[in-house]
Amino acid sequence: MNQGLEDKLSSPDKPNGRIWDRLWTNVNLATMQGQSYGEIYHGAIATTGSRISWLGPQDQLTDPPEQLAKTVTDGMGHWLTPGLIDCHTHLVFASNRAKEFEQRLRGVSYAAIARQGGGIRSTVSATRAASTEELIRSASQRLQSLLDSGVTTVEIKSGYGLDIDTELRMLRVMTALENNLAVSIHKTYLGAHTIPSEYEHHRDGYLNLICNELLPLIGEKNLAEAVDIFCESIGLNLAESTRILEAATDLNLNVKMHADQLTDMGASALAAEFRALSADHLEHCPESGVRAMADKGTTAVLLPGAFYYLKENRIPPVELFRSYGVPMAIATDLNPGSSPVASLLTIMNMACTLFSLTPEEALSGVTSNAARALGVLDDRGTLEVGKRADFVLWDIQLPAELSYWVGFNPGVERVKDGDPIRKA
Amino acid sequence: MNQGLEDKLSSPDKPNGRIWDRLWTNVNLATMQGQSYGEIYHGAIATTGSRISWLGPQDQLTDPPEQLAKTVTDGMGHWLTPGLIDCHTHLVFASNRAKEFEQRLRGVSYAAIARQGGGIRSTVSATRAASTEELIRSASQRLQSLLDSGVTTVEIKSGYGLDIDTELRMLRVMTALENNLAVSIHKTYLGAHTIPSEYEHHRDGYLNLICNELLPLIGEKNLAEAVDIFCESIGLNLAESTRILEAATDLNLNVKMHADQLTDMGASALAAEFRALSADHLEHCPESGVRAMADKGTTAVLLPGAFYYLKENRIPPVELFRSYGVPMAIATDLNPGSSPVASLLTIMNMACTLFSLTPEEALSGVTSNAARALGVLDDRGTLEVGKRADFVLWDIQLPAELSYWVGFNPGVERVKDGDPIRKA
Repeated sequence: MNQGLEDKLSSPDKPNGRIWDRLWTNVNLATMQGQSYGEIYHGAIATTGSRISWLGPQDQLTDPPEQLAKTVTDGMGHWLTPGLIDCHTHLVFASNRAKEFEQRLRGVSYAAIARQGGGIRSTVSATRAASTEELIRSASQRLQSLLDSGVTTVEIKSGYGLDIDTELRMLRVMTALENNLAVSIHKTYLGAHTIPSEYEHHRDGYLNLICNELLPLIGEKNLAEAVDIFCESIGLNLAESTRILEAATDLNLNVKMHADQLTDMGASALAAEFRALSADHLEHCPESGVRAMADKGTTAVLLPGAFYYLKENRIPPVELFRSYGVPMAIATDLNPGSSPVASLLTIMNMACTLFSLTPEEALSGVTSNAARALGVLDDRGTLEVGKRADFVLWDIQLPAELSYWVGFNPGVERVKDGDPIRKA
Repeated sequence: MNQGLEDKLSSPDKPNGRIWDRLWTNVNLATMQGQSYGEIYHGAIATTGSRISWLGPQDQLTDPPEQLAKTVTDGMGHWLTPGLIDCHTHLVFASNRAKEFEQRLRGVSYAAIARQGGGIRSTVSATRAASTEELIRSASQRLQSLLDSGVTTVEIKSGYGLDIDTELRMLRVMTALENNLAVSIHKTYLGAHTIPSEYEHHRDGYLNLICNELLPLIGEKNLAEAVDIFCESIGLNLAESTRILEAATDLNLNVKMHADQLTDMGASALAAEFRALSADHLEHCPESGVRAMADKGTTAVLLPGAFYYLKENRIPPVELFRSYGVPMAIATDLNPGSSPVASLLTIMNMACTLFSLTPEEALSGVTSNAARALGVLDDRGTLEVGKRADFVLWDIQLPAELSYWVGFNPGVERVKDGDPIRKA
């Protein structure tokens, strides 16, 4: 806050002359509304409490900024975008899989790693064994890394517990993270991540646990914002996924689905049939799946981090999503096995470099379309009066720079619910 | 510094009881010497002035740590590695090419971008036009990003001036960067980056400028540690490169070369013939080039960032480098056109994920072998008594984690010339 303003605030003669809490002047706004980036050059933006209360060209301000807000920040001609939204992560887990990563690169086969208890089951074992404090501690580090890259809302999935206690504990860890850090967290129940080894020979028993015990509990106590399923050749099959989708929608829970990542099983069309908020991954999504998603308003969530780590060759049908008008979101997929990526900016670059998205699509993929994938576009994801005051100030010349760099963070200030957090 | 120790220091009764300036205890050392990572578990490391004065298992310390050093740091069981060395960058430049990046993704052709003055020539124009202060300011941001990722030594090439004044100015900017930030900078003269447009129709004229004016000046005034050449179908041809190599070696200047990136022109063998410190890129390096490099002790510098941005398909002959015993370094290649990557940690991951290096090879690629590529292995690149006290403390369980994550920085403390710089 500038000192002159501080002095004014402490003077008693004009205590009610200001209408807003905070005002940023001298910024270029990428509102992510309308054409292209929805640019407003030489703009200003004001907040009251946790909401955006005004934005527009600065020359529309009727009075000197200091008379309009309690705090005025000179944006130095920087760009201001909506706070970034990472709409698909698995960032709560114990241990990590760096050792497996090294073993594979030293030539140890997947089969040998599986025999020694590797893969997702090693993360499940470690997560079940970890204390709640340890889960909070390690997840906080990864979450902080995302916040440093400009994120203000993060979706986190359970699914490394696969038993009642640990799944509920993961959801509680997410609540603790939200209480500790300046971020909104969307909790997704992903009990259907895989069949745990103890149910390997009676898969229906695990589905009963999900459908008869966990989903009703989650619905009743409002423990998660959505239910997700890993529908895949190596995950749950189409019939199993359908059963969970039916149970979840019967309880009026939002659904989303890992679909068509490794094989085309009809998962994206199934997700659309149940009006899923999103279908995620989609490398093998056929045109019929794209059409179904367009018809039902299901957002495509693309995850280039997993594509990169798994050295996949087939990219999602981006051209089809464009021509059918399916909104594309992008996300880190932050997880210990196939995407240990903790920067949403780097993912924006991967979306452009690996999937040929434009920088504008990449930015809407982590703002407006990511909000859509979480069902909260009415509340955030664009700069609009009345929406949540979540935004980021960037020292860049063009919005495309956010997708252009790798490992370079031009963030200057992150604002969450109207509160600014300056970069250290 | 712990308070008890501070008190001791101010007490007059035992002023000479300590033999080292600083001591880190309770660390695992990855010395990068000998087998694998050269691990010393439960270790300690001491410095005197800017040098490493002792290291080993902590139980070999003969006295309590506080009696052995003026300052003792508890390493909390973290890992400590040599400071990272980025041995190939072009990080001094004006403007950036985010606009071109966006145009290409919107479908504008390379030819159309070239017609509007794009590509390297746009960076040359902008760099010539920029003030020295502006060059220092923008380069400092990128350099700071590298330092944040654990780097203590950076090589920087000129080559965006291509005239006497601007090339010399770029070298002076590097000196200013070294004076402003806690990092060692190795300056490389890359006048032979491309033929500037004003010499397009008399290429020999530009070679005369390099060989008759700039190289002698650089040799006489010691303005750079090495001379580099972009030997490529779109750069200088083999005869032109040979002429510069001859002129540089006649002046006893170290040489290195951009070789075999896009085509096999025999560049790596030529570099070896002139006993180049390194040949860099090498995607198209043939076995004869590998053999020549092995014979002459030329280090291979692999640059996965450019491979990634340019969507190349052919990876460097890593197996051949291994079997012939050619040391492999890796680097960011930080530049505005083909590798706007400002994190050496991310490059370590790309080396593993895209080129199938092991995490151990990736770490030696940015420590011992990077030092080799700069000709300074006797001074740094491993943890050894007498070497420069450049190292990094990481909050990780295994050294492989440094290559495993993307966009997650586990750095806790960077030590440059014996001076610790804590993460903010």
